[in-house]
Amino acid sequence: MIQKLTTEERAAQIAQLHGWQAVADRDAIQRKFEFADFNEAFGFMTRVAIKAQEMDHHPEWFNVYSKVEITLATHEADGVTGRDIELAGFIDSITA
Amino acid sequence: MIQKLTTEERAAQIAQLHGWQAVADRDAIQRKFEFADFNEAFGFMTRVAIKAQEMDHHPEWFNVYSKVEITLATHEADGVTGRDIELAGFIDSITA
Repeated sequence: MIQKLTTEERAAQIAQLHGWQAVADRDAIQRKFEFADFNEAFGFMTRVAIKAQEMDHHPEWFNVYSKVEITLATHEADGVTGRDIELAGFIDSITA
Repeated sequence: MIQKLTTEERAAQIAQLHGWQAVADRDAIQRKFEFADFNEAFGFMTRVAIKAQEMDHHPEWFNVYSKVEITLATHEADGVTGRDIELAGFIDSITA
Protein backbone atom coordinates (compact mmCIF):
# COMPACT_ATOMS: atom_id res chain seq x y z
CA MET A 1 0.00 0.00 0.00
CA ILE A 2 1.47 3.31 -1.07
CA GLN A 3 1.75 5.90 1.70
CA LYS A 4 0.92 9.54 1.26
CA LEU A 5 3.69 12.09 1.75
CA THR A 6 3.90 14.02 4.98
CA THR A 7 3.27 17.76 4.80
CA GLU A 8 7.03 18.36 4.93
CA GLU A 9 7.82 15.77 2.26
CA ARG A 10 5.08 17.15 0.03
CA ALA A 11 6.36 20.73 0.38
CA ALA A 12 9.93 19.63 -0.39
CA GLN A 13 8.82 17.69 -3.47
CA ILE A 14 6.60 20.53 -4.77
CA ALA A 15 9.59 22.86 -4.50
CA GLN A 16 11.44 20.60 -6.98
CA LEU A 17 8.60 20.86 -9.50
CA HIS A 18 7.56 23.81 -11.70
CA GLY A 19 4.39 25.74 -10.91
CA TRP A 20 2.61 23.01 -8.95
CA GLN A 21 0.67 24.09 -5.88
CA ALA A 22 -1.06 22.32 -3.05
CA VAL A 23 -4.85 22.40 -3.43
CA ALA A 24 -6.52 24.36 -0.63
CA ASP A 25 -9.31 22.02 0.43
CA ARG A 26 -7.89 18.56 -0.20
CA ASP A 27 -4.59 16.65 -0.23
CA ALA A 28 -3.74 17.10 -3.91
CA ILE A 29 -1.48 19.15 -6.16
CA GLN A 30 -2.53 21.25 -9.12
CA ARG A 31 -1.06 23.12 -12.06
CA LYS A 32 -2.70 25.20 -14.78
CA PHE A 33 -1.38 25.31 -18.32
CA GLU A 34 -2.16 27.53 -21.27
CA PHE A 35 -1.17 26.60 -24.80
CA ALA A 36 -1.38 28.35 -28.16
CA ASP A 37 -4.60 26.60 -29.15
CA PHE A 38 -6.69 23.45 -28.78
CA ASN A 39 -4.44 21.38 -31.03
CA GLU A 40 -1.46 22.06 -28.79
CA ALA A 41 -3.46 21.58 -25.58
CA PHE A 42 -4.92 18.23 -26.65
CA GLY A 43 -1.59 17.06 -28.03
CA PHE A 44 -0.13 17.71 -24.59
CA MET A 45 -3.01 15.85 -22.94
CA THR A 46 -2.43 12.88 -25.22
CA ARG A 47 1.22 12.67 -24.17
CA VAL A 48 0.17 12.82 -20.51
CA ALA A 49 -2.55 10.20 -21.11
CA ILE A 50 -0.07 7.73 -22.60
CA LYS A 51 2.33 8.24 -19.68
CA ALA A 52 -0.51 7.97 -17.16
CA GLN A 53 -1.65 4.69 -18.66
CA GLU A 54 1.92 3.36 -18.59
CA MET A 55 2.17 4.32 -14.91
CA ASP A 56 -1.38 3.14 -14.18
CA HIS A 57 -1.77 6.48 -12.43
CA HIS A 58 -4.26 8.90 -13.93
CA PRO A 59 -4.86 12.64 -13.61
CA GLU A 60 -8.04 14.55 -12.89
CA TRP A 61 -8.16 17.22 -15.52
CA PHE A 62 -10.24 19.94 -17.09
CA ASN A 63 -9.76 21.38 -20.55
CA VAL A 64 -11.37 24.22 -22.40
CA TYR A 65 -9.81 25.24 -25.71
CA SER A 66 -6.14 26.13 -24.97
CA LYS A 67 -6.35 25.73 -21.20
CA VAL A 68 -5.66 22.58 -19.19
CA GLU A 69 -5.95 22.28 -15.42
CA ILE A 70 -4.45 19.14 -13.87
CA THR A 71 -5.03 17.86 -10.35
CA LEU A 72 -2.99 14.94 -9.03
CA ALA A 73 -3.70 12.80 -5.99
CA THR A 74 -3.52 9.10 -5.23
CA HIS A 75 -6.99 7.75 -4.58
CA GLU A 76 -5.91 4.68 -2.62
CA ALA A 77 -3.68 6.74 -0.28
CA ASP A 78 -6.23 9.58 -0.03
CA GLY A 79 -3.50 12.13 -0.69
CA VAL A 80 -0.34 13.03 -2.57
CA THR A 81 2.23 10.24 -3.02
CA GLY A 82 5.45 9.70 -4.91
CA ARG A 83 3.38 8.61 -7.91
CA ASP A 84 1.87 12.07 -8.18
CA ILE A 85 5.30 13.66 -7.95
CA GLU A 86 6.59 11.33 -10.64
CA LEU A 87 3.71 12.12 -13.01
CA ALA A 88 4.04 15.86 -12.25
CA GLY A 89 7.77 15.61 -13.05
CA PHE A 90 6.99 13.99 -16.39
CA ILE A 91 4.42 16.69 -17.17
CA ASP A 92 6.97 19.38 -16.34
CA SER A 93 9.52 17.68 -18.58
CA ILE A 94 7.27 17.95 -21.65
CA THR A 95 6.30 21.57 -20.98
CA ALA A 96 9.73 22.99 -20.21
CA MET B 1 -22.79 36.01 -35.98
CA ILE B 2 -24.33 32.80 -34.71
CA GLN B 3 -27.47 33.27 -32.61
CA LYS B 4 -28.21 31.32 -29.49
CA LEU B 5 -31.27 29.11 -29.43
CA THR B 6 -34.42 30.32 -27.70
CA THR B 7 -35.50 28.42 -24.59
CA GLU B 8 -38.11 26.60 -26.67
CA GLU B 9 -35.70 25.73 -29.47
CA ARG B 10 -33.11 24.51 -26.98
CA ALA B 11 -35.65 22.29 -25.19
CA ALA B 12 -36.83 20.82 -28.50
CA GLN B 13 -33.25 20.11 -29.61
CA ILE B 14 -32.23 18.57 -26.28
CA ALA B 15 -35.21 16.23 -26.55
CA GLN B 16 -33.71 14.87 -29.80
CA LEU B 17 -30.40 14.10 -28.08
CA HIS B 18 -29.52 11.35 -25.58
CA GLY B 19 -28.95 12.22 -21.93
CA TRP B 20 -28.04 15.89 -22.39
CA GLN B 21 -29.37 18.33 -19.86
CA ALA B 22 -29.49 22.09 -19.54
CA VAL B 23 -26.97 23.36 -16.99
CA ALA B 24 -28.69 25.03 -14.02
CA ASP B 25 -26.74 28.25 -13.69
CA ARG B 26 -25.70 29.07 -17.26
CA ASP B 27 -26.87 28.70 -20.85
CA ALA B 28 -25.08 25.44 -21.66
CA ILE B 29 -25.81 21.72 -22.03
CA GLN B 30 -24.06 18.89 -20.24
CA ARG B 31 -23.78 15.13 -20.33
CA LYS B 32 -21.83 12.71 -18.12
CA PHE B 33 -20.28 9.53 -19.47
CA GLU B 34 -18.77 6.51 -17.79
CA PHE B 35 -16.59 4.06 -19.65
CA ALA B 36 -14.96 0.76 -18.76
CA ASP B 37 -11.59 2.36 -18.00
CA PHE B 38 -9.24 5.24 -18.82
CA ASN B 39 -8.20 3.78 -22.16
CA GLU B 40 -11.80 3.77 -23.34
CA ALA B 41 -12.55 7.21 -21.87
CA PHE B 42 -9.53 8.88 -23.44
CA GLY B 43 -10.12 7.11 -26.74
CA PHE B 44 -13.61 8.62 -26.74
CA MET B 45 -12.17 12.05 -25.90
CA THR B 46 -9.74 11.75 -28.79
CA ARG B 47 -12.56 11.08 -31.23
CA VAL B 48 -14.46 14.09 -29.89
CA ALA B 49 -11.30 16.25 -30.04
CA ILE B 50 -10.76 15.47 -33.71
CA LYS B 51 -14.38 16.27 -34.52
CA ALA B 52 -14.26 19.46 -32.43
CA GLN B 53 -11.15 20.65 -34.27
CA GLU B 54 -12.81 19.91 -37.61
CA MET B 55 -15.84 21.95 -36.53
CA ASP B 56 -13.69 24.61 -34.87
CA HIS B 57 -16.05 24.23 -31.95
CA HIS B 58 -14.56 22.88 -28.75
CA PRO B 59 -15.98 21.33 -25.58
CA GLU B 60 -15.34 22.15 -21.94
CA TRP B 61 -14.66 18.83 -20.33
CA PHE B 62 -13.48 17.11 -17.21
CA ASN B 63 -12.04 13.61 -17.00
CA VAL B 64 -11.02 11.40 -14.15
CA TYR B 65 -10.18 7.79 -14.96
CA SER B 66 -13.26 6.29 -16.68
CA LYS B 67 -15.51 9.33 -16.25
CA VAL B 68 -15.96 12.20 -18.68
CA GLU B 69 -18.20 15.22 -18.14
CA ILE B 70 -18.81 17.41 -21.19
CA THR B 71 -20.29 20.91 -21.19
CA LEU B 72 -21.17 22.58 -24.47
CA ALA B 73 -21.89 26.25 -25.11
CA THR B 74 -20.93 28.76 -27.79
CA HIS B 75 -18.71 31.45 -26.36
CA GLU B 76 -19.40 34.07 -29.00
CA ALA B 77 -23.18 33.69 -28.65
CA ASP B 78 -23.00 33.41 -24.85
CA GLY B 79 -25.29 30.39 -24.94
CA VAL B 80 -26.32 27.18 -26.69
CA THR B 81 -26.39 27.29 -30.50
CA GLY B 82 -26.84 24.87 -33.37
CA ARG B 83 -23.11 24.15 -33.20
CA ASP B 84 -23.49 22.69 -29.71
CA ILE B 85 -26.40 20.56 -30.83
CA GLU B 86 -24.37 19.33 -33.80
CA LEU B 87 -21.37 18.41 -31.64
CA ALA B 88 -23.65 16.77 -29.04
CA GLY B 89 -25.26 14.76 -31.86
CA PHE B 90 -21.86 13.54 -32.99
CA ILE B 91 -20.92 12.60 -29.42
CA ASP B 92 -24.17 10.66 -29.09
CA SER B 93 -23.47 8.88 -32.36
CA ILE B 94 -20.16 7.48 -31.12
CA THR B 95 -21.56 6.40 -27.74
CA ALA B 96 -24.77 4.73 -28.93
